[in-house]
Amino acid sequence: MDEIANTVNLGPEAGTLQRHAATTLAEQLSAQFSARIRNRLLPPGSRLPSVRECAKRYGLSTQTVVAAYDRLQALGLVEARAQRGYFVRVPGDTPALARRSATQTDAAAPMLAPTHATALVRGMFHQMGAGAAVALRGAPGSGVLPAPWLESAALGAALRRIARANELEQASLHYGHPLGDLALREALSRQLAGLSLQVPPQQILTTNGASQALDLVLRALTRPGDAVLVESPGWAMQFAQMAHHGLKLLPVPRGADGPDLDLLDQLARAHAPRLFICVSVLHNPTGQSLSAASAHRVLQLARRHGFQVVEDDVYAALAEPSSPRMSVLDQLEHTIYLSGFSKILAPGWRVGFVAAAPAVIDRLIDQKLLAVLTTPTLTERVLAHVLGQGQLRRTTQQVRDRLDAARARAVRLAEKAGCRFVTPPRGLLGWVDTGVDTATLSQRLLDAGYLLAPGHLFDPQQQPSTRMRINFTQTQDEAFWRAFAAARR
Amino acid sequence: MDEIANTVNLGPEAGTLQRHAATTLAEQLSAQFSARIRNRLLPPGSRLPSVRECAKRYGLSTQTVVAAYDRLQALGLVEARAQRGYFVRVPGDTPALARRSATQTDAAAPMLAPTHATALVRGMFHQMGAGAAVALRGAPGSGVLPAPWLESAALGAALRRIARANELEQASLHYGHPLGDLALREALSRQLAGLSLQVPPQQILTTNGASQALDLVLRALTRPGDAVLVESPGWAMQFAQMAHHGLKLLPVPRGADGPDLDLLDQLARAHAPRLFICVSVLHNPTGQSLSAASAHRVLQLARRHGFQVVEDDVYAALAEPSSPRMSVLDQLEHTIYLSGFSKILAPGWRVGFVAAAPAVIDRLIDQKLLAVLTTPTLTERVLAHVLGQGQLRRTTQQVRDRLDAARARAVRLAEKAGCRFVTPPRGLLGWVDTGVDTATLSQRLLDAGYLLAPGHLFDPQQQPSTRMRINFTQTQDEAFWRAFAAARR
Repeated sequence: MDEIANTVNLGPEAGTLQRHAATTLAEQLSAQFSARIRNRLLPPGSRLPSVRECAKRYGLSTQTVVAAYDRLQALGLVEARAQRGYFVRVPGDTPALARRSATQTDAAAPMLAPTHATALVRGMFHQMGAGAAVALRGAPGSGVLPAPWLESAALGAALRRIARANELEQASLHYGHPLGDLALREALSRQLAGLSLQVPPQQILTTNGASQALDLVLRALTRPGDAVLVESPGWAMQFAQMAHHGLKLLPVPRGADGPDLDLLDQLARAHAPRLFICVSVLHNPTGQSLSAASAHRVLQLARRHGFQVVEDDVYAALAEPSSPRMSVLDQLEHTIYLSGFSKILAPGWRVGFVAAAPAVIDRLIDQKLLAVLTTPTLTERVLAHVLGQGQLRRTTQQVRDRLDAARARAVRLAEKAGCRFVTPPRGLLGWVDTGVDTATLSQRLLDAGYLLAPGHLFDPQQQPSTRMRINFTQTQDEAFWRAFAAARR
Repeated sequence: MDEIANTVNLGPEAGTLQRHAATTLAEQLSAQFSARIRNRLLPPGSRLPSVRECAKRYGLSTQTVVAAYDRLQALGLVEARAQRGYFVRVPGDTPALARRSATQTDAAAPMLAPTHATALVRGMFHQMGAGAAVALRGAPGSGVLPAPWLESAALGAALRRIARANELEQASLHYGHPLGDLALREALSRQLAGLSLQVPPQQILTTNGASQALDLVLRALTRPGDAVLVESPGWAMQFAQMAHHGLKLLPVPRGADGPDLDLLDQLARAHAPRLFICVSVLHNPTGQSLSAASAHRVLQLARRHGFQVVEDDVYAALAEPSSPRMSVLDQLEHTIYLSGFSKILAPGWRVGFVAAAPAVIDRLIDQKLLAVLTTPTLTERVLAHVLGQGQLRRTTQQVRDRLDAARARAVRLAEKAGCRFVTPPRGLLGWVDTGVDTATLSQRLLDAGYLLAPGHLFDPQQQPSTRMRINFTQTQDEAFWRAFAAARR
């Protein structure tokens, strides 16, 4: 459920500030900042670089930078604070979310504005539009495999099959079943049986990606003010989804074996949370998997305190099928299983699903109907064909082997560039300590054309961090690590 | 944005109560009722038929019916109330929605449980599962064209084109743009220009059907407790969507020319609503279109009172392009335009969109990212090809001509069966008065295999009604009208 596009087309507008352009340098600089503010790459409340630092970074005079900042102030995008510098303004007309979260009473569980979390996704497309100073060269902070690693031949074959057959009419001219296409749910049921999770098709509900799976679970099972347990670090978009629903986040530190069980117990006792949102296998961003003993203990706590475990398994394909999963131990009694196909097959198709107990599925159907009516049968049916062909299993093994080699190289390059791995490198994503504030680092590297995933995005409290997440497959290039080392100094 | 499947496959389990089956008649009858309760066809709080009436309807002894009702009571699905009969229980563990709406303070604006609204959609599939007494013969209450009326040849050609080209990789191996596929947004921009609505691609956001378009607008622009103006009659699923967001509904009667303008003015003055949700063209369920003068007046009120008009135009294809639309008059200053392709092209693809002012689009992007991340590029790109071929325009004219003939026949049959048209028949949907309570009527006709759209579904307050909505294309069969006349007696 990690959400950054894997590669981008470089837009025609890309380029650095132009000295002999029709607009002044100050105008160009302010246009660049205003685009970043609009796309949340500079979120509300964040500080602009000092005039001196900015002048140095872009090779401009301080007068030019002051003129650009004045212009941003006139546009109402930034405000000057005496002795402290320029800050991005929080928009006066706050959206529903911000206003809703303002009604929260527990100041210890601050809400995260979605504006922060959506920055990475918006950032991918920001670089393609007007106001982008530099074309995007890479996205080391991405959470998905590069497009060339994915296999489209099987997708094309399945599509042609649907286009020929009278299946096209079935998949196009009717609304789909509220649970999702039956052929896909049958294929998913067989696939889950391969993980030793026995779940019939009527206990599977398809969604628009694993993102919608979580959104529907939150819509169906929580109400504003409810507490939910989350992992720290964890994924910003999920925190933002919970904040949108007005939930109180209770962060539980994630260790190598799993969550801090004593704290989990204490928090559950004190706050009676409804849910625990958790990645068992190849946790994002640390890459660690739950031990069997931790899985068992978490389930005991769930039973004792009456919360449900929402097990997010989007990286399933990149791990051994035998990795411990709470849904497998518990067979969906106190667990809700979410996954999808964006990490291994077709991010652009947006097919995800939830497997859960019948009573939970029944509530999810109503919420799915209210949110989107039904999901597209076409993509679901085509995917059912792809899964039926067995191609996915072969692809997956190849990807895992290739990933092992890429990880080894990326780890070497990262360590050479001065990064320390906070947790042992596993799977697709590495969690590294850079020794410097990664929010500043990511602004500098954006100027060089690289989109990072700074550490504060993975902190439920959004605290500044020297850590960041790297994607092993997207950090193979020495040029990136040179730019990284330069920005770090 | 009307949401009933157009045809259904008849499931193998379909059939009436079996006298020599392995289960007793009482068990079969209670299984049938429990499936209906589960699928909301008998919503919480509704009364079961009296024992005598039920015995007569199914040709059973009263003892058998009492045994079945006892069984339902033991299952906790119904409760007996002295002197009044058996009622469907409101589930003890109420979902988030019901609990949220219980915090409403304005008793004059009652909340509608989504459980009622989703009944029609669930009902289509209910008949295919276990517990269905009779296979579905037809859905006169459906809101869409029958599948055979839709054209799939152009869809297949476009699909084959995508499957061949390297477009497949573009449409599959990357996350789509947060606004939606650019090729589709360009095609939509050209199509809207044909309605005299000038809107660039960057002011169009694609959605999973028009249903999601409304959900995202509500997420982005309202907060719990806000008042919104709605039309009465109007569409139950939309009322349920608003109820889910904790909104106060302010019903405005819809006349032949448009909403009651004086009441609209008074309500807007008294309640400061954020939005007015309105169907300008071929209003659901009355079939009436807004006059140009009404459109102008509504916009004046929107400007005066500061609310935005959400113009739902899902029946656009079935009307003349010249029909007055508020978005066209106002060019999206105080209007937000929603539409989709489920009524004319491919209900199973779930492609809808919003066109709005840049500031509104900016908020919608964040909500789309939080709800589903992005929508599927595959279906959007294929649809862009279909729109580019110009096939849709030809299909649309043929459908309109065919619809005129079907409407004439359905009106004749309906009037012969004793229905009176409340509003002059137009478009796809007719609003008729049957002279009897349509909730009871729809239960009886469900036994005969017909799914109706009873009047209370179109009332924001869910009051009992003698009216119902009929689909002209789905009421061509004399057998239905005979069953209707029999059930009405």
